This record gives sequence, structure tokens and C-alpha cells, in this order.
Amino acid sequence: MGKNLTSRAENYSKWYNDLIVKADLAEHSAVKGCMVIKPYGYAIWEKMQATLDKMFKDSGHVNAYFPLFIPKSFFSKEASHVKGFAKECAVVTHYRLKNSDDGKEIVVDESARLEEELIVRPTSETIIWNTYRNWIQSYRDLPILVNQWANVVRWEMRTRLFLRTAEFLWQEGHTAHAGREEAVSETLKMLNIYAEFAEKHMAMPVIKGVKTESERFAGALETYCIEALMQDGKALQAGTSHFLGQNFAKAFDVKFTNKEGVQDYVWATSWGVSTRLMGALVMSHSDDEGLVLPPKLAPIQVVIVPIYKTPEERQATLEAASKIKQELQSRSISVKTDERDTHTPGWKFAEYELKGVPVRIGIGPRDIQNQTIEVARRDTKEKSTYQVVDAALKIEHLLEQIQDNIYKKALSFRETKTFSADTYEEFKEMLKHGGFVLAHWDGDPGTEGKIKEETSATIRCIPYENRKEEGKCIYTGKPSAQRVLFAIAY
Amino acid sequence: MGKNLTSRAENYSKWYNDLIVKADLAEHSAVKGCMVIKPYGYAIWEKMQATLDKMFKDSGHVNAYFPLFIPKSFFSKEASHVKGFAKECAVVTHYRLKNSDDGKEIVVDESARLEEELIVRPTSETIIWNTYRNWIQSYRDLPILVNQWANVVRWEMRTRLFLRTAEFLWQEGHTAHAGREEAVSETLKMLNIYAEFAEKHMAMPVIKGVKTESERFAGALETYCIEALMQDGKALQAGTSHFLGQNFAKAFDVKFTNKEGVQDYVWATSWGVSTRLMGALVMSHSDDEGLVLPPKLAPIQVVIVPIYKTPEERQATLEAASKIKQELQSRSISVKTDERDTHTPGWKFAEYELKGVPVRIGIGPRDIQNQTIEVARRDTKEKSTYQVVDAALKIEHLLEQIQDNIYKKALSFRETKTFSADTYEEFKEMLKHGGFVLAHWDGDPGTEGKIKEETSATIRCIPYENRKEEGKCIYTGKPSAQRVLFAIAY
Repeated sequence: MGKNLTSRAENYSKWYNDLIVKADLAEHSAVKGCMVIKPYGYAIWEKMQATLDKMFKDSGHVNAYFPLFIPKSFFSKEASHVKGFAKECAVVTHYRLKNSDDGKEIVVDESARLEEELIVRPTSETIIWNTYRNWIQSYRDLPILVNQWANVVRWEMRTRLFLRTAEFLWQEGHTAHAGREEAVSETLKMLNIYAEFAEKHMAMPVIKGVKTESERFAGALETYCIEALMQDGKALQAGTSHFLGQNFAKAFDVKFTNKEGVQDYVWATSWGVSTRLMGALVMSHSDDEGLVLPPKLAPIQVVIVPIYKTPEERQATLEAASKIKQELQSRSISVKTDERDTHTPGWKFAEYELKGVPVRIGIGPRDIQNQTIEVARRDTKEKSTYQVVDAALKIEHLLEQIQDNIYKKALSFRETKTFSADTYEEFKEMLKHGGFVLAHWDGDPGTEGKIKEETSATIRCIPYENRKEEGKCIYTGKPSAQRVLFAIAY
Repeated sequence: MGKNLTSRAENYSKWYNDLIVKADLAEHSAVKGCMVIKPYGYAIWEKMQATLDKMFKDSGHVNAYFPLFIPKSFFSKEASHVKGFAKECAVVTHYRLKNSDDGKEIVVDESARLEEELIVRPTSETIIWNTYRNWIQSYRDLPILVNQWANVVRWEMRTRLFLRTAEFLWQEGHTAHAGREEAVSETLKMLNIYAEFAEKHMAMPVIKGVKTESERFAGALETYCIEALMQDGKALQAGTSHFLGQNFAKAFDVKFTNKEGVQDYVWATSWGVSTRLMGALVMSHSDDEGLVLPPKLAPIQVVIVPIYKTPEERQATLEAASKIKQELQSRSISVKTDERDTHTPGWKFAEYELKGVPVRIGIGPRDIQNQTIEVARRDTKEKSTYQVVDAALKIEHLLEQIQDNIYKKALSFRETKTFSADTYEEFKEMLKHGGFVLAHWDGDPGTEGKIKEETSATIRCIPYENRKEEGKCIYTGKPSAQRVLFAIAY
């Protein structure tokens, strides 16, 4: 296993890219801006999907599927929506290829031009609300609580694996409600589900809050978000939940008859998380030796490496491995035994470190004699010797401890990297070292824009669980009712 | 529930479309040729996906994800492949929209034209084999057993919900092997998995076989398939598994060093099933009252309808419903109680008939008194009275019986609709009544073409478990070694 990872200290960005590629999570494809998600990376994404999908269904949502393509005219119907997405749209203009006249190459058949261009969906509000118009007549048809797992395309010039790619995978929830309050409450419910997923499953602490106007989703009245802090001190938006008001209902003429028999426009929300979470997961926990995966999302939770020299030792260690594997599996723990004799135990140790397997078991001839196994945890790299007799139970607890420890470590990192600035000078100084900076802001988008221009920092959110505290804007000195959360972000 | 389904006898094609729409499976979208899969339809697809995914994983496959877009030049690399797909490709030519000069509409930004056009994948052999080139150096890197769940686009002018749509959902397996035999064996293994899924889960009998040259996948050496017979006597290709030889390895220069240290091209297979299976499922079992779903794929296996007049009766029946629901759920049976008081029991009965729920339970005041429930099965429409005390166990068995009965009914239908023709006149006469016709064919694609032209029948496959039987081609009288399976197909 030629690891040769660049260290985080040396070059964080290169460390990230190296790690994604070397740990077999993903790679750049031949199509500019698009990635290939490799089997190991996809297995983590599948675990994320399964967990989220269950959370969505347990909270009353159902899945459906809407078209990949959106007629261009649909975009024009919600003014701020098209403004937000027009600059990054992949456009389908033709529906046929043919041989060139000289027969030497394949060319676009100009006679097969579409009457109206189709946009590859960057998000599906427009096509979905156009569909909802036919699904909704009365309050009895509401709420509609639909989610879609899909690929979307936003043309990006500068891409980074998982964090920013032209095509990415995501889920997008699109709900329709009879009243404003119900819609707002759905928006917040989903924000809380995202936060719970991030913290309990990804072991990634997040700050819940609401976006300022300039950071809002194109077409939303309010955008709520969860924000996480990466190890380089940059913030990452990990999920968003939008209260769309009646904007899309008005744009697509979706009305319902309420209980009083009066017609009104339908209220909407949308919410999504994407394969970007894979990048967040990697950057939250991993180290210079490789990935550190929280047990709840690790495709392999425990790997067993047999250590032997002779064929007899091989047989004995494999037998012992098989027993412990069965015991772990009966506790619903996913286990792999690496039986390959083409690689040394040392090579394998390094490989599973790189791949972030939470617990590694070594079994050698002396262990067989002593009825023990050697247990190494990936997060702290501590090693212990366990008696075989109660090993499975102890490993089950160990996995819980690791999940917990990774979360606490990330939380403590965030706490040491969250600052309060009272002056603009302080603010700029703090930003140099990375992290979240809580500071007063006068509420003016102009001020926000200037701070961004001068420091690259943006307001990540107005934290949802915020202490009200009067103060003065660090930039203009104007009065402010609370601190907002600034950071330089991905 | 205003059913008003057209009957099958009256207009089979309209019956199918009505049913898909009225049972809330899918509908046409605003985008020509693309469908919306509605929550109830998507829930069935999710069950199909989950079952297939487990079968793939249990047989050693892993999932991954490759780009939606394929550079146009990739298509030209495998000659027969491009020939097969060029005429139905959605082509992305631009990556930006802008405001028109008069500011009144949104137009394609001509300055944002792609250097090379991108094709929305109709299938992913080319992008995947271009990727595999970097994954494979030696025999140690083989086999690669990868599957992808994805959307694909094949521009179709005449579309039908689920059966033929411009965009559809599917899975595509793409495997790479060190030897021909291993690849052939993988091709057949997957064919068998598809057949098992069709018969055991969809309750749809299939005939396994190999396609003739003219029906082969573009780029394959052999295409194996499963063919099912629909109730109107038309055949439907339900899944294909392709032995691709070294065609794509040669086109994309994918070589490996074998155990002897010699370089060779890699051997390939690909295999897929799609949302077309949803259409096959509907057309295999459903009747003039609505869907008939096999219990293994039914999102709701048992529905409970309480029957009451007074509030006291309502409470009592709901309590009884809740008890039986819990007992069924503890046996992993999915149950819904329809508590709505906005609809009559009769309306609900019709609705769940339309939606194909395998078992319906009615509980009224007299049932409460007698400690009984009324159980109606959807497939035969038989009703029985069960004692509450052992109802759950009996319903569990009933679901198995229904699964079995639906399969047997479809099998017996196919048997009565499978004919042997010895002359062309007989052949044409048999085709008039629909069904499979086994007949001798001289092996010449020209003959096959003429028969198709004159009768619309195609060779669905050369059945895999075929009795060798010498005879004479029904069209040319030339010698033939076995009968092949003809039908008019979807």
C-alpha cells in the first residue's frame, strides 16, 4: 500500500484530494467536472442514503421520480429562480447523432433540433410544481410530502471531488401544504432531521440557522441550513431546507380550495442534501494516515487480519477469524476477513487505516495459544488485547465508543475554533487562523457584501439557537440585535 | 373511487394506460416522452430495487456511479455500438442560459457552446470501459463486478408509460474478466438471477434464451434474455445479459497482464433491467378491476377497512384493527388501516382493488361480536371469515398462496398460449390469436427479416433449455436444428 498521503499541515487541499483518490472513494472522470464514485465511496453513500431514507419515511414522506429534463420556459416562470440557475445549466438542444457526410465521424444531426431546449435539472422545483398543479384541487389533497433521490447538474468551472462537481447525487424533498405555518414547520422539521443525521450518524457537529437574504436559495422566502466546520477552519454548508412560501404555486398556478371553500395558492418547502456530505465526512474526521469513518457509516466496521507464517498457522488463524467473524455478524456488525496471501499483514494494516475501518483485529499464533485477539481502534490508534470469550460484546461497545469519541473530538475542535469578534480588526485577525467568528452585523446586504469582498468571509447563518445580544456592527458600527456566524466557506 | 377502467377485451392498450394512471403508478410529464413515477408506483419499484440489489450483492457485486454524460467521441470507438444508439441520443451542446437582448425571455447563451458535445447516457459501456482502463493492470485487478443504478435516456418518438419512455430508470451491471469462459459464465449467472427475480418475486414466468444476431445488443457477441408473455398475447423482453467479448476492451484499450505475464484484452459483460418491469408486472397479472400485485412486491400487503355506523362502533372496530395490525406487523407483513371517515367502506374496497392490495380485511360490529374478521383476497376475489385468534398466521400463509397462485395462473396462461407451427400458414394463423409460436427457422437474418416484415413477429429468443429437433424452416424450407421462439412483441 503506497500511501504517501500529503499531510494536512503541508497542503490541506492536496491531502483531501489524495485521500479521496487513494482511499478509493472517487476520481475525476473523462467528462469535465463529473466524477466517478468508486465502489468503496458509493458504499458509504448507500449507508447515508439508507439512513436518511428511513428518517424521511418515518416522518411521513414518500419517494417519487420526476423527469431529468426541464423545458426552458419553466425556468422563466419564477424570476429569482432562473436568475440563480441560468448561468450553470446544461442544455439539450438535439436528439440525434448521424454520420458526417464523409462518413468519418459522428456529428450532431442538425435536422433533429428540439423545438424548445431542455435543461438538465439543476433542481426540480419547476417541473415538480408544474406536476403538482394536477395533483392538488382541495385541502384534502394536502399535504404532499414527496422526496426524490436523483442526479442533478450545475455547470461548475472549478470542481473538487464531492464538494463541487457538475453532476452530483442528492435527494430533494418537495412538499405542498395548505397553510404557511404548516409549511414553515415542515421546513424546520427537515432541518432538524438533517442535523440529527449529521450529528448522530456522521458524528459531525453542526450549527443550525437561517441564511441571510443574499445567501438564500433562488426562489425561497427563507433558507435554513446546517453548517459544519472542517479541520482547516473552513465552513461547509451540509444541508439546506427552504421555505418557499407561495412563490412556486403562483408561478405554476397551483391553487387549492380550503376548508372554507375559498381558493388559495399552495404553500411549499424544498430541502436537500447531496454527495457533498461525503466530502464533509472526510474532512471532519480523517487524519494524515487516511480516512477515519464513524462506525455507523463505515461499509466495513471491523476487519480481521490473520497473521501467520506456516500453512498450519494460516489454518489456525483463519479458523479463529471465522469464529469471531460469526459472533460479530450475529450482532449485526459488518466484518471482513482479509484472507489474501499476496499481501503482508503490515501492508493490510496500512490499507485499512487508509480506508478508515473503525476496528482492526489481528490474530496471530500467540493469540491462538492465549485465546486472545489484538484489537486496534482507528480513531485513537490504541491497541488492546481482548479475551476471545467476550470479544464480540466488547467490540460492539467499542464501536459505540468510537462513534461517540469522533463526534466529541470534532465538537471540541469546533469549540476551540469558534471566536467572538467585537471589532473589524479582531474579526480579520481571527479569520486568518480559520474557524467560525461570531460578530455583530447591521443586517444590511451591502455591509455583508463588503465584508465578503474584503475578507472572503460570508455569513454562514444566523444561528437558530442564538442568544439575543445587542451590539454594534463590526463594519458600520450600526446597531445589531444579535451576533451572526461568519466564516470562510467551501 | 370512480374506476371506470376500460376492460381488457374492449381495448387492451387503453386498459393498460388507464390502469397505470388511475392506480397512481405513473403519468406523462410536461416533457415529451418522460414520465413522472408517482409515489405508489415508485414504492413498487423500490421493492424491486431492494430485492435485485440484494441478489446482486449476494452474488459478489458492488455498486458504483459513473457520469450521466458521455463525450460524443467515445461513441465512435465501438462501431456497432454507435450505430445502435446514435439515432436516439439527447445531446448537450451548451452550458449556460442568458436573458435575451430585449430582456423578455431566457435564451441559450451561444457563447457557452461546448467544445465537444456530450450525450446523455443511453447506456454506459463506453464511459465505464474508458474508466476501467485505469483500474486494470493485472489479473489481480480482476474480476471487476460493478453495478450502477441510474437514469438513462433513449429518445423515443412513440412512448408508453413504463414500457417505452425517453428517460427510464434501470440498473446496469458492467463486469470485467480475465477470461472468456469466466465472462460467459457471469453473463449466464446474471440471466439466471433475472429469471429467478421475475418468477419468484414478480410471479411472472419467463423463457430464458439467446437472441439472434439481428436482435443483439449493439456491441455484444451474444445477448441472452428473459421473455415473458403478456395477457394480450404479446411478448415482452424483461431483461438482458450481454457477453461483450473483448469489443469494448479493444475500443478503449483495456489490457491486463495475465498470470503468465502476457498482455491480453479484458473480457466484458453487461446486463440490465429497467422500470419496464413495472409495465410487465402490471400486464402479467392485473384484471378489469385493477392491479393484481404479487405480495412480495406489494407496498401494502394487507389493508384493513373498519366498518361502522356509530362512534362506538368506530372505536371498537378501530381497536380490533389495531390489534390485528400489530400481529401482522410482527410477522413482517406491511399493513395499512384506512381510518378515513370521508369515504365509505365500499369506496375503499374499490380503491384497494384498483391498487392491487393482495389481502383486504373488513371488520364490522358483527365481527367484533363473533371475534372474527372478513378476509378477501385480491387475486381470486374469494372471501372467508377468519377467527381473530389465528388470523395473523393464516394471513401469512394466504399471502404465500396468493404469490404462488398468481405465478401459476400466469404460467398456465402462457402454456395455453404457446404453439408449435410447422408451416408458414399455420404460423400466421396462430399469430392472429397472440402468444408464443415455436417454429423452425433456417438461421438466416434475411429470412428473419422477411418474416418480421410480413407478420410483425420477431424471434424473441432461441430458448436456452431447448429440445433439439430437426426440421424445416417455415419460410424457406431449409434445414433447421431446433425451433425458435417467435412472437409479436412490445
